Amino acid sequence: MTESGKLTEFELIARYFSNVGCSAKAAINAVPLSIGDDCALISVPPGQELAISIDTLVAGCHFPEDASPYDIGQRVLAVSVSDLAAMGAAPLAFTLALTLPEVDQEWLSGFSQGLRKAADLYGMPLIGGDTTRGPLTLTVQVHGAVESGRALRRSGARIGDRVFVSGTLGDAAAALAMIQQRLAVASEDDKSFLLSRFYCPEARVKLAGELLACASAAIDISDGLLADLGHLCRSSAVAAKIYSQRLPLSSVLDSLVAKQQSIDYALTGGDDYELCFTAAPAVRKHIEALSQQCGIPITEIGEIIAGDHVACVGPDGVDLAINKAGYQHFR
Amino acid sequence: MTESGKLTEFELIARYFSNVGCSAKAAINAVPLSIGDDCALISVPPGQELAISIDTLVAGCHFPEDASPYDIGQRVLAVSVSDLAAMGAAPLAFTLALTLPEVDQEWLSGFSQGLRKAADLYGMPLIGGDTTRGPLTLTVQVHGAVESGRALRRSGARIGDRVFVSGTLGDAAAALAMIQQRLAVASEDDKSFLLSRFYCPEARVKLAGELLACASAAIDISDGLLADLGHLCRSSAVAAKIYSQRLPLSSVLDSLVAKQQSIDYALTGGDDYELCFTAAPAVRKHIEALSQQCGIPITEIGEIIAGDHVACVGPDGVDLAINKAGYQHFR
Repeated sequence: MTESGKLTEFELIARYFSNVGCSAKAAINAVPLSIGDDCALISVPPGQELAISIDTLVAGCHFPEDASPYDIGQRVLAVSVSDLAAMGAAPLAFTLALTLPEVDQEWLSGFSQGLRKAADLYGMPLIGGDTTRGPLTLTVQVHGAVESGRALRRSGARIGDRVFVSGTLGDAAAALAMIQQRLAVASEDDKSFLLSRFYCPEARVKLAGELLACASAAIDISDGLLADLGHLCRSSAVAAKIYSQRLPLSSVLDSLVAKQQSIDYALTGGDDYELCFTAAPAVRKHIEALSQQCGIPITEIGEIIAGDHVACVGPDGVDLAINKAGYQHFR
Repeated sequence: MTESGKLTEFELIARYFSNVGCSAKAAINAVPLSIGDDCALISVPPGQELAISIDTLVAGCHFPEDASPYDIGQRVLAVSVSDLAAMGAAPLAFTLALTLPEVDQEWLSGFSQGLRKAADLYGMPLIGGDTTRGPLTLTVQVHGAVESGRALRRSGARIGDRVFVSGTLGDAAAALAMIQQRLAVASEDDKSFLLSRFYCPEARVKLAGELLACASAAIDISDGLLADLGHLCRSSAVAAKIYSQRLPLSSVLDSLVAKQQSIDYALTGGDDYELCFTAAPAVRKHIEALSQQCGIPITEIGEIIAGDHVACVGPDGVDLAINKAGYQHFR
């Protein structure tokens, strides 16, 4: 401690960030050296490649300024792990670069508890990081392992493949509307469901590992289904046709807003962190079995066709006109 | 482009951050998949471990608010690569999480040019990242390869080892004093030398690779020699005695400030990004040869002894009293 009683950078790390995710024995074996040296060391299993993704969350942009530190801690890891899931990679370890306006021990305590919960859930130790002073900004890099040459890329979709999504869509967009007081929700149960969909998205890691054997391409839905399926189509040089009536909606969302609004949330709302993937029609039965096995709904919402854009067919068989093609920073 | 003529996130990445460091053929072979998917993929060479380090630079804290974007671009990569050097790891690839208050194309152009220069120097492609809107903050994670079990750790110093440093110390601290108008520098050549020591530190990658064979422990000097040698000693459960008269000072620093001030800069000034390492006295000749071979001065400044702190012996043979043991955020 300094003379003023404040924590130093090293004490802060020791108090709040030591042994995060260290119950993950398998992952620990892949980390010969963790926090405390100039670098951490990762030993990638033979025959595997390392999948990496880095994401930044900025206060007031990616989460409300007054979000609970526990929720932020959970969410910052989950959204990055979702990128590993989109490649079919198994979580290995993560790093955290934390920029804080001041040492607020109450905030740090809540944040590190949320982070620990997510790290335990995904079996990922925190193996390195940086703490700096400045406006609240969190950057996480996740590291996963996937069999060499087998990662699920965005570029593998083929004409005739079907388009699938996991879970339900639009809940996180409705949650954000509720948080920003654009959507009134009376029931405490509904509120709590929506908040958990926004703050505790569950990265579809287990499902993704199984999809390695049968999916042709995958992406996680962070910017909105239309935008993300659009990325997948561009990478694969194909188009997609999806059907609004097939979009999987939670009963909570269905009960809260009119059909047209829920479809809009499902198509253009970000932050769902479900998987959108393509697969040949022949493996449809296998995918149904995976859905049972993993306990996660999987819905076939459309097909891959020739062309260069994503169209959504409405209930009357006519393409919906969509204005907002997913969230973009800097727009 | 959006209707307002502003770049979207995707256009920004394509325009300023595609093919950064891609002249590095060897490194490219280790990257089966780069920017543009949910994750990048790294293929670690057989028998090697991956060394990783993440660092954040915050405007106004780690560099002056009015620093040139070109200088920031160079520096943000160099300071992270220095961590790879401290482990003896060879640069492989890096990721960049960039938080920007707005899309300032002049700033982005300068920044990406500086970043490209450093990426080419270290032979590292930019393989992934994130761009977000918020206060100017830059986070880089570097990835390097080192033979399994051979990385230079902080914990390997043994009693009787000698303490060495590369290059000269204190120049970056003098540069910062100059930038902050605490130090007047008349000569344009001296100004330019100091600025380049602060903004373009050269990570000692080549030297570090050679040190794998003969050094017992290493750390890079980012927080100041006393603080960083202190970290090394704590990790190794030893103490160190160094001699102020042996500290390597540049002729520019020597000519600009009184001896006592230059010693203070060298001991406690951060940002030098030189290597501090320990080695058995028996390999002293070998280290002299490496210094010649790499064209980098290496100076023996002291020895590893039993105990628990770092002492600096002054010219009169009496320990110097040092107040400030290196830079810490949050102090």
